[in-house]
Amino acid sequence: MNTFGHLFRITTWGESHGGAVGVVVDGCPPQIALDISTIQFELDRRRPGQSHLTTPRQESDVVEILSGVFEGKTLGTPISMLVWNKDARPAAYEHLKQLYRPSHADFTYQEKYGIRNWQGGGRASARETIGRVAAGAIAKQVLREMSGTETLAYVKQIHTLEAEVDADTVTLEDIEASPVRCPDPIVAPKMAERIDQARRDLDSLGGVIESVARNVPVGLGEPVFDKLKADLAKAMMSLPATMGFQIGSGFGGVTMTGSEHNDPFYLEKGDQTERIRTRTNNSGGTQGGISNGENILFQIAFKPTATIGKPQQTVDMQGNEVTLEASGRHDPCVLVRAPAIVEAMAALVLTDHLLRQRAKF
Amino acid sequence: MNTFGHLFRITTWGESHGGAVGVVVDGCPPQIALDISTIQFELDRRRPGQSHLTTPRQESDVVEILSGVFEGKTLGTPISMLVWNKDARPAAYEHLKQLYRPSHADFTYQEKYGIRNWQGGGRASARETIGRVAAGAIAKQVLREMSGTETLAYVKQIHTLEAEVDADTVTLEDIEASPVRCPDPIVAPKMAERIDQARRDLDSLGGVIESVARNVPVGLGEPVFDKLKADLAKAMMSLPATMGFQIGSGFGGVTMTGSEHNDPFYLEKGDQTERIRTRTNNSGGTQGGISNGENILFQIAFKPTATIGKPQQTVDMQGNEVTLEASGRHDPCVLVRAPAIVEAMAALVLTDHLLRQRAKF
Amino acid sequence: MNTFGHLFRITTWGESHGGAVGVVVDGCPPQIALDISTIQFELDRRRPGQSHLTTPRQESDVVEILSGVFEGKTLGTPISMLVWNKDARPAAYEHLKQLYRPSHADFTYQEKYGIRNWQGGGRASARETIGRVAAGAIAKQVLREMSGTETLAYVKQIHTLEAEVDADTVTLEDIEASPVRCPDPIVAPKMAERIDQARRDLDSLGGVIESVARNVPVGLGEPVFDKLKADLAKAMMSLPATMGFQIGSGFGGVTMTGSEHNDPFYLEKGDQTERIRTRTNNSGGTQGGISNGENILFQIAFKPTATIGKPQQTVDMQGNEVTLEASGRHDPCVLVRAPAIVEAMAALVLTDHLLRQRAKF
Amino acid sequence: MNTFGHLFRITTWGESHGGAVGVVVDGCPPQIALDISTIQFELDRRRPGQSHLTTPRQESDVVEILSGVFEGKTLGTPISMLVWNKDARPAAYEHLKQLYRPSHADFTYQEKYGIRNWQGGGRASARETIGRVAAGAIAKQVLREMSGTETLAYVKQIHTLEAEVDADTVTLEDIEASPVRCPDPIVAPKMAERIDQARRDLDSLGGVIESVARNVPVGLGEPVFDKLKADLAKAMMSLPATMGFQIGSGFGGVTMTGSEHNDPFYLEKGDQTERIRTRTNNSGGTQGGISNGENILFQIAFKPTATIGKPQQTVDMQGNEVTLEASGRHDPCVLVRAPAIVEAMAALVLTDHLLRQRAKF
Repeated sequence: MNTFGHLFRITTWGESHGGAVGVVVDGCPPQIALDISTIQFELDRRRPGQSHLTTPRQESDVVEILSGVFEGKTLGTPISMLVWNKDARPAAYEHLKQLYRPSHADFTYQEKYGIRNWQGGGRASARETIGRVAAGAIAKQVLREMSGTETLAYVKQIHTLEAEVDADTVTLEDIEASPVRCPDPIVAPKMAERIDQARRDLDSLGGVIESVARNVPVGLGEPVFDKLKADLAKAMMSLPATMGFQIGSGFGGVTMTGSEHNDPFYLEKGDQTERIRTRTNNSGGTQGGISNGENILFQIAFKPTATIGKPQQTVDMQGNEVTLEASGRHDPCVLVRAPAIVEAMAALVLTDHLLRQRAKF
Repeated sequence: MNTFGHLFRITTWGESHGGAVGVVVDGCPPQIALDISTIQFELDRRRPGQSHLTTPRQESDVVEILSGVFEGKTLGTPISMLVWNKDARPAAYEHLKQLYRPSHADFTYQEKYGIRNWQGGGRASARETIGRVAAGAIAKQVLREMSGTETLAYVKQIHTLEAEVDADTVTLEDIEASPVRCPDPIVAPKMAERIDQARRDLDSLGGVIESVARNVPVGLGEPVFDKLKADLAKAMMSLPATMGFQIGSGFGGVTMTGSEHNDPFYLEKGDQTERIRTRTNNSGGTQGGISNGENILFQIAFKPTATIGKPQQTVDMQGNEVTLEASGRHDPCVLVRAPAIVEAMAALVLTDHLLRQRAKF
Repeated sequence: MNTFGHLFRITTWGESHGGAVGVVVDGCPPQIALDISTIQFELDRRRPGQSHLTTPRQESDVVEILSGVFEGKTLGTPISMLVWNKDARPAAYEHLKQLYRPSHADFTYQEKYGIRNWQGGGRASARETIGRVAAGAIAKQVLREMSGTETLAYVKQIHTLEAEVDADTVTLEDIEASPVRCPDPIVAPKMAERIDQARRDLDSLGGVIESVARNVPVGLGEPVFDKLKADLAKAMMSLPATMGFQIGSGFGGVTMTGSEHNDPFYLEKGDQTERIRTRTNNSGGTQGGISNGENILFQIAFKPTATIGKPQQTVDMQGNEVTLEASGRHDPCVLVRAPAIVEAMAALVLTDHLLRQRAKF
Repeated sequence: MNTFGHLFRITTWGESHGGAVGVVVDGCPPQIALDISTIQFELDRRRPGQSHLTTPRQESDVVEILSGVFEGKTLGTPISMLVWNKDARPAAYEHLKQLYRPSHADFTYQEKYGIRNWQGGGRASARETIGRVAAGAIAKQVLREMSGTETLAYVKQIHTLEAEVDADTVTLEDIEASPVRCPDPIVAPKMAERIDQARRDLDSLGGVIESVARNVPVGLGEPVFDKLKADLAKAMMSLPATMGFQIGSGFGGVTMTGSEHNDPFYLEKGDQTERIRTRTNNSGGTQGGISNGENILFQIAFKPTATIGKPQQTVDMQGNEVTLEASGRHDPCVLVRAPAIVEAMAALVLTDHLLRQRAKF
């Protein structure tokens, strides 16, 4: 279904063309001050056309809040938000009506539903993430007020170029200062160059987004099925184009032994307080599926964008072989826009679990 | 919560020590012939102590079906199954009462709940997976009857040793023929050796499980949040010790370009039938989150087991530094038992989506 | 939460004043032809100001469909609908800002959330039912196409005036032909008179709505908790102002003995077909919580509207005694508008269970 | 499905014959002291065969707790409880194998599932309520500890005999002191007599259970769909044999006018505290679906038990007319055992909403 979350719950709706896209946020605690400009800021981060590196479509994506907020504060009732679709040009998609674009969802939607909106990607379009980002912006505000928790995400790798980033100290400003949203000043320009080359090659690139959540309370996450890592994995793998998720040591950790991998506990003593911490963080901030107070650190693999400029062989709905000609515009690397989406999903998961934990005592 | 699935829904319960562990399977279609011996077979595959490679504890794990089955067939009502705990020796765990074992869930459970069953791993114990495996055995039967779908899993990598397996042709017999459940006759013996060495080193190893689902109907998986890949990711990341999930090209796919990665469609013509297929399967069997009829192929990273034989530095509940002495027995590589669990979780996800798809038309 | 249904699932949002009210319908089967005029028709039935008998506010309530429909057919994706609020006059409610209106939700909302939109009834307003009615209009269409099932509701009683209606034969036209939506030509005019008197008395009236579902397939409803009667009860008791629900013999049945009350089975033989039926229908169309193919018949008690024209004693938020003066306009009997809402809720419940049943085989 | 509740969630399982019946309680807060004898006490209240007034079957119904409790306290993990079935005598039901008993669930189960356990009522048996009562006993303990809330239920009416009970002051002792669980010393003996007569007549009786919840915190219940009255209605109408639910003024309230029905607010001043209350309680303790701190008062109509001693006309599975002969034993009035069940369901609903409310702040 189109709903995510148990206590802090969002329902997104809308195809990429025609009407609008939007979200209903249910379960938001009351009396949270909501700044619409911070919601718009996140949508702007997600929006295509922010620089020459991203798709040339100009989508203004202005959010409207239709319910749930009164005199600047949440009411505790559902918050409905929408963004109107402006870029509806059916003719531009007419040639796709009968085609199955490779590695797109055309074929599977047609088979699943027996019908599809061929004017763009329908629900499979990245435009669906507008609702997630708007809802995530509210979740971020709830986390900030209730537990001081922060979620950040940035480009860790594009194609073969891997960045070095200190997840413990990186800031939103560091990320936004880079046109490719990679806060490694040495690798970031190379990434931009690689993307430009891909555009000239009429091709596309994938990569890895890394995300960190800091100042996470101990105790979030439910054994057994709703482990924090499981809900984060689902959240991230529900995004278009994602092919993998790993937390902490991830796939690299399999070549370590237990004695190397285990995170030893120690008592950290501050001036006034002391708390139990781990010396290493191979666990990535959760143990037994529950947050342990260390930073939550995870990566997501994104495949290269399916839409490319080169002609491709494919079939139409009747199975006839046809050539899909270049459409003349394409976004060679969507990762540049992904950090806002990943942060939003992380914030949604953490807020949901924060509320679930509050119910217990 | 302790429930997984939307229409085919399981609820597991039980700590590792005291009483029993079990599962309630809700939403199972009626009139499915259920062979209790196949359920027991799967539990035996999951059980420790199957060979010298696994933990020496002898758990017989005999399943009892308490409801939902009548004259050998499912009634459509909840199927309750349990396995009694036999290995309750509180004294063996007495020394752990006050300790936080590194990379175990002792600390996070204590912080979350303010109480924990210190006699073993409680709900965080791998023993919780008994319920999943029993339920998965039923799901497998449903899949077999309703769509002819099969799920298989095997050891793909242990520590640095990686196997070569043809996911399209591997059989359950191939997997079970290997003591390490790796159907690569060359690498498997090396894995066994490596595990033996880890035991002698009082250490532990991690690895990668690979899983394939074959003969999956086109159209399973829901846009947007309940994509098949998202639900598989959640299912797998809800297992103890998992650190990563990838599908299709996974993390490796990020170094490909779009023109290399896209899976071209073609029409496969048989004698009587024809169907649209893809020439490559970088997508791993889903597009837009929906199955496309190709094999679903994914991998899961398991960290090295947290329980090792070496002494370790840690803290007790008061934060005092203490040494955790070896307990005298440990399972150096749980991966050998993981295939049954991974197959079960895959079967549960697929069955749930199969039923959801049937509701639509 | 603000979501109802398991497979056919609606989420409503919106306060009575400011922005809009709306609904997201999730899980609607694809390829259902949707006529927007039938949705508008149901909203018009629900709308105040249809005759001198109802509230004089003029709300045009024009529905907009923003997603999920393509070329007149459902896509299987979420259908988002909204109606803009036009009657926002905060000044008209200024005097209520600090007051707790008797038998309204002002006090409980304020205590629950610590904040409320005092400009009208917020989420407790009957305006929230717009989303339900719009969604129900879609559910009706699904029922018609998939199983030929029809839901109808009408005024059975207002104050002490009780109508006689044959639930097996009454039609929508019969109901709509009456200004009070009571298809008893003798009692209906008396009801209209009674309502007019209540308006002159600055008072209000309650009553009973009766609803019938005809041509319901055998087998809808889940044991144990999601019995059809249980979900109908929840649906109806989730409406504002409802105080009771009864099905079949209801509260009256308690004075019968078992031998009087039991519904004997018999075989009804038609020309081509035969089916098992019951001679009486004290069960109201469900047995064991599951539909038995007989008409589903139930009644709902609505209290007299809380808003009246007479001055009332109450307290303000600080507990000071104050007099709530008449607002100058009130709707003395909301029952006249309730049939559309009751039919919608019944259709939502039946559609959900119809899809659930289809998943089973 | 067989699950009820959102945060405090129960899953019941088990047919009336064969194996066992049980429940899994999920979401119970940790560190609640659990007295198994209070759970057994509630099961004993529910149990048939307590006096000559109820069914002569002797069911000992001894509960076993299999998980979730450690050293007398809840762990916060699922609590699994079961009661073994002892009364399995297939031969006693052999004559029912092909029959559809009037107003039983035989026909609808057969049509829904195509299979049924004909050895007793299967899931439709009142035996299913064992799980509810055991879970409710835990919920009662949670309510007592967390909010001091108490739920009580008693027989208000049997056949035409109606009792007078002061819901504000009645005690558990008053209820249990009466063999028919009616705390009206004048009417109760007449009820017992009426039941004895029904037994001699080989017939059965229905009635009304009244239930009160006292000391309920203000603010429980969610607008819109999960109103407290809606969830109570669903809970009660999910019980076997229930035909109606009403809260506060109920169906009787429809003959009042608004000025008579509205509950005026006032400020109650105590020595140290003051709180806003209502002078009357026609609302039955909720307004806008949310508890207002007054007692929650509701009634449930139970039809006369379907099993009677008289022969009845019915059909078999092939539609042939047959006579259902008396089975020789029947329980002429199940209401005597219903108070424990109603209290349990009320406690489950209130506990769920109590936890939901705690999540908000």
